[in-house]
Amino acid sequence: MATATISERELAFLLYEVLDTAGLLRRERYAEHSREVFDATLETARQLAEDLLAPHLREGDENEPQFENGRARLVAPTRAAWQAIADAGFLSAHWEQAEGGLQLPEVVLRAAMSAFYAANVGTAAYAMLTIGAANLLRTFGSPQLRARYLAPLGDGRFAGTMALTEPSQGSALGDIKTYAVPQADGSYRVFGQKMFISGGEQDLTENIVHMVLARIQGAPPGVKGISLFLVPKILPGEHGAADTPNDVALAGLLHKMGWRNTTSTVLSFGEKGGAVGWLVGREHQGLAHMFQLMNEARIGVGVMSASIAWRGFSESLAYARERPQGRLPSNKDPLSPQVKLVEHSDVRRMLLVQKAYAEGSLALCLYACSLFEDQHTHPEPPARAAAGRLLDVLTPVVKSWPARYGAAANDLAIQVLGGAGYTRDYPLEQLYRDQRLNMIHEGTEAIHGIDLLGRKVLAEQGAGLRLFVDTVRQDAGRASEAGLGDEAAALCAALDRLVEVSAGLAALQRSEPDLGLANATLYLDAFGRVTLAWIWLLQGRAAARALPAASGEAADHYRGKLQAMRYFFQWELPQTHAQWALLARADRCAYDMRDAWFI
Amino acid sequence: MATATISERELAFLLYEVLDTAGLLRRERYAEHSREVFDATLETARQLAEDLLAPHLREGDENEPQFENGRARLVAPTRAAWQAIADAGFLSAHWEQAEGGLQLPEVVLRAAMSAFYAANVGTAAYAMLTIGAANLLRTFGSPQLRARYLAPLGDGRFAGTMALTEPSQGSALGDIKTYAVPQADGSYRVFGQKMFISGGEQDLTENIVHMVLARIQGAPPGVKGISLFLVPKILPGEHGAADTPNDVALAGLLHKMGWRNTTSTVLSFGEKGGAVGWLVGREHQGLAHMFQLMNEARIGVGVMSASIAWRGFSESLAYARERPQGRLPSNKDPLSPQVKLVEHSDVRRMLLVQKAYAEGSLALCLYACSLFEDQHTHPEPPARAAAGRLLDVLTPVVKSWPARYGAAANDLAIQVLGGAGYTRDYPLEQLYRDQRLNMIHEGTEAIHGIDLLGRKVLAEQGAGLRLFVDTVRQDAGRASEAGLGDEAAALCAALDRLVEVSAGLAALQRSEPDLGLANATLYLDAFGRVTLAWIWLLQGRAAARALPAASGEAADHYRGKLQAMRYFFQWELPQTHAQWALLARADRCAYDMRDAWFI
Repeated sequence: MATATISERELAFLLYEVLDTAGLLRRERYAEHSREVFDATLETARQLAEDLLAPHLREGDENEPQFENGRARLVAPTRAAWQAIADAGFLSAHWEQAEGGLQLPEVVLRAAMSAFYAANVGTAAYAMLTIGAANLLRTFGSPQLRARYLAPLGDGRFAGTMALTEPSQGSALGDIKTYAVPQADGSYRVFGQKMFISGGEQDLTENIVHMVLARIQGAPPGVKGISLFLVPKILPGEHGAADTPNDVALAGLLHKMGWRNTTSTVLSFGEKGGAVGWLVGREHQGLAHMFQLMNEARIGVGVMSASIAWRGFSESLAYARERPQGRLPSNKDPLSPQVKLVEHSDVRRMLLVQKAYAEGSLALCLYACSLFEDQHTHPEPPARAAAGRLLDVLTPVVKSWPARYGAAANDLAIQVLGGAGYTRDYPLEQLYRDQRLNMIHEGTEAIHGIDLLGRKVLAEQGAGLRLFVDTVRQDAGRASEAGLGDEAAALCAALDRLVEVSAGLAALQRSEPDLGLANATLYLDAFGRVTLAWIWLLQGRAAARALPAASGEAADHYRGKLQAMRYFFQWELPQTHAQWALLARADRCAYDMRDAWFI
Repeated sequence: MATATISERELAFLLYEVLDTAGLLRRERYAEHSREVFDATLETARQLAEDLLAPHLREGDENEPQFENGRARLVAPTRAAWQAIADAGFLSAHWEQAEGGLQLPEVVLRAAMSAFYAANVGTAAYAMLTIGAANLLRTFGSPQLRARYLAPLGDGRFAGTMALTEPSQGSALGDIKTYAVPQADGSYRVFGQKMFISGGEQDLTENIVHMVLARIQGAPPGVKGISLFLVPKILPGEHGAADTPNDVALAGLLHKMGWRNTTSTVLSFGEKGGAVGWLVGREHQGLAHMFQLMNEARIGVGVMSASIAWRGFSESLAYARERPQGRLPSNKDPLSPQVKLVEHSDVRRMLLVQKAYAEGSLALCLYACSLFEDQHTHPEPPARAAAGRLLDVLTPVVKSWPARYGAAANDLAIQVLGGAGYTRDYPLEQLYRDQRLNMIHEGTEAIHGIDLLGRKVLAEQGAGLRLFVDTVRQDAGRASEAGLGDEAAALCAALDRLVEVSAGLAALQRSEPDLGLANATLYLDAFGRVTLAWIWLLQGRAAARALPAASGEAADHYRGKLQAMRYFFQWELPQTHAQWALLARADRCAYDMRDAWFI
């Protein structure tokens, strides 16, 4: 039978055999924890997801939030799930104990939250957004703002949002028009319209804390004139007065193909004289501050994508194991019994590809979370810096690869079921729709391709790229010692090509920036394939080392890992050859295409 | 502005410059026609699609057919559209004049119907199904059945269905359980349940003619014991008595992610003593007969897929031309005006890929229709046979490639719009959902991969494959003479590899049939890439020949064709290298994967 959440065995493998999550216990911050605490956290999340999130997956999809008297009404089970997530401490689990948190490692919290995403992303999204907004406040908020807003964000009385996008600017944040007027009391009045604000309105919490990008009047143009403001939905009553609504109006709900239980809102700030807001962090540094939340959200989208892909894999596997249909090509006897779908080679292929995409994505995301962890809690400063640098390079891939290949996995999950897959009798078609949004959330591939090739690869004279290459090469060496020499050699050859092509494109960007970035999305895909090959090699190495001493289901799990690794190296990595060729010659097909030629 | 239907220029290019549709006028059957008649047919379809189908695309999606008193109620505009399609003669346009038809060529009718599919596939599907059912009746029906049912199927009073699938058998038709009991009067009583029957119930027509596969009691097992029956929803009153309902009950409506305005039904035959049916064609030859309809429907799904892909291309192009956003990488001035989306190289790439997939698919399908045309009306018997043989080989690709790559095109269409793409304010998200079903309709890729590699390539000692290769090679030679030598050479090299790999897999099928067919889906994809490269070369040749004498929009259209051809040869065809390598060594990744290893 399919479970709605990622299996205990899989998470344990990734956390403790591929990553060194147990090693975190040696750090001072985690000295009071134990593996039992980590595992209990994962188990609590799993139970909660199965009991309170998974059951209303369909209900939330079929009953989109309703606009009623300026508020958005969600299906009732959303509130119970939200409350349970908050009550179990997931919104503040990673905070310091001094802040009221449990001081849990980021990687454990993210692994735990995969259960929520696999079960019901439309409901779980409110938690991810709130955690991100609170983190911004923790890092950049004034003591007064922290004192007022942090606790209720941690215990679920308030929720948070990130309010960046505007109707006429899309991905180009430099063009936002929302502005803020300073007041004598140090506060600001905010005016403007924001769009695609997830969770911008709901009936789960008594207040919503919007983290809003806006320009202080007179600020420089472009991204250098953007500041960050905290704008609550409800203003606190001063001196014992009652709380009052802020000047933030729900202008509309967007109707989406997926994530339907997450409101997507158009918000109007300042229609009645100005929404009260407070500066978070420094003037004109808002975008830099917001990047903390955006980068966290990017990893979050990666985990979400991986989780939805894994759910589809699990559901389609369960169907393929139960459903008899047809016979193998070698059997021409129509009176012989039908075989189960999973006996057909092409069905196994579709399941194996899903496994490779979903588990590879999850491993990549948890690897990124462990880098985040090291960046913040590693005892040695150089190791912290290196982790941050590597995470910077990987973030575009973490955001993009799981979303793109997670969608491909969910597509295959439907295909395994055939016609049943597109009916609403099974969750596959909803997973497919939910997943589709992740390719756009937190930036399209075009945005991340340009970020990778146009910034991350060029930054610090290529230090990030070199660190990536060195890290992968070291891991390849270790894998080779574990008997995976063929795969290690293939990966190193791909790395050579990556380095060579990257150097050429870096030079071209200096002479012809538009042409140099014309195929950045293709570069992102090729870079992603190499990255995932590495991530699969890490998993393969862990499996190869553990297999000889394993038996039963554990041994089967390792064999599956090795087979998925082989699949990735045989089927996916070789596709980079054609990609490097295009990139190496800076193919001009799209670049030279003229608007008038299209139709 | 986007149009809901494929442009006049595009259809004219494919019909008259790539294909020799005008040459059909020399055949006796079309002696009374002219190009003006063909073009008027296309124009009528376009008008009808824009006026009566496109406007209720969203309405039919948001208001799924309702089950009411054993019937299915559709949104009201569906009926007006159906009636207009029938009144304009599209249901019988290809029939002989003696049958009441217009004697129009298949290729013109299919091109005309692309307008219906692009505008609203959920409504247009009723027409495709009715045309197919009527064709079966025309070919295999007794004079009595034809006399009774053909005219009302042609004028839209009745509609038709194809009732193959059953709940417990899926794609394996040999396992169907529906059975038929012969009666003294020559009729049969039919008992059983059919599932996924599109159009199995609706409120458009006074009767529905179900073409049902069933076993005559005592028939041999498997596919050799299947017969074809005509089972009407309403029985004619004999000797002046009133019409009476047949024993066919609507057991349920399936709720789908797309094509929502097309009912997908579960039908119960014979719950009250037996549904009255009549044998169509010969006993136990039902599957062979049904293949006529299935093959037509497969081309139909190809045309539908291409049309939906083209619609998404057109809609996203219109958006990209209108929406200002961001600046080019070379411009760092935040005060400079925003550029239109289409100015961004990656947006042009996404539009160019859509063009390559959508127009390539449409060209492939219309090529297939011209083969169908030649198979039936070419004056020379050897040419008729050759056309039929080539069409047999191509049908799996025609069914599968436009569906798979049409879905990829519709995915990119969403991506061009960013967040707006997944909202229901634009038709892109619905096109994406509608398109997804086409990968399953009329057989998944797994089914067609096995059909191609396990039957079509082996048939007649490889005669079909040889004909394909010879045809492509001849066309490559002609393209080379038109200045497209590089592309012609690349295509010939791909053909060499195709031939070599096919021979190896044919041999392996004899020794190890299960392994030989284990990667049939990959083979289908590689074969499809070669096929589409050929189809693009045909278009490129037509454009290259016409461009020197062209100007204005016509010249731009040719330039666009040449650029899309270049894209296909630079980006898509080279991906076959990695595919042939896997196929040549009969990769065992999926084949060796064990069920227990998955999770």
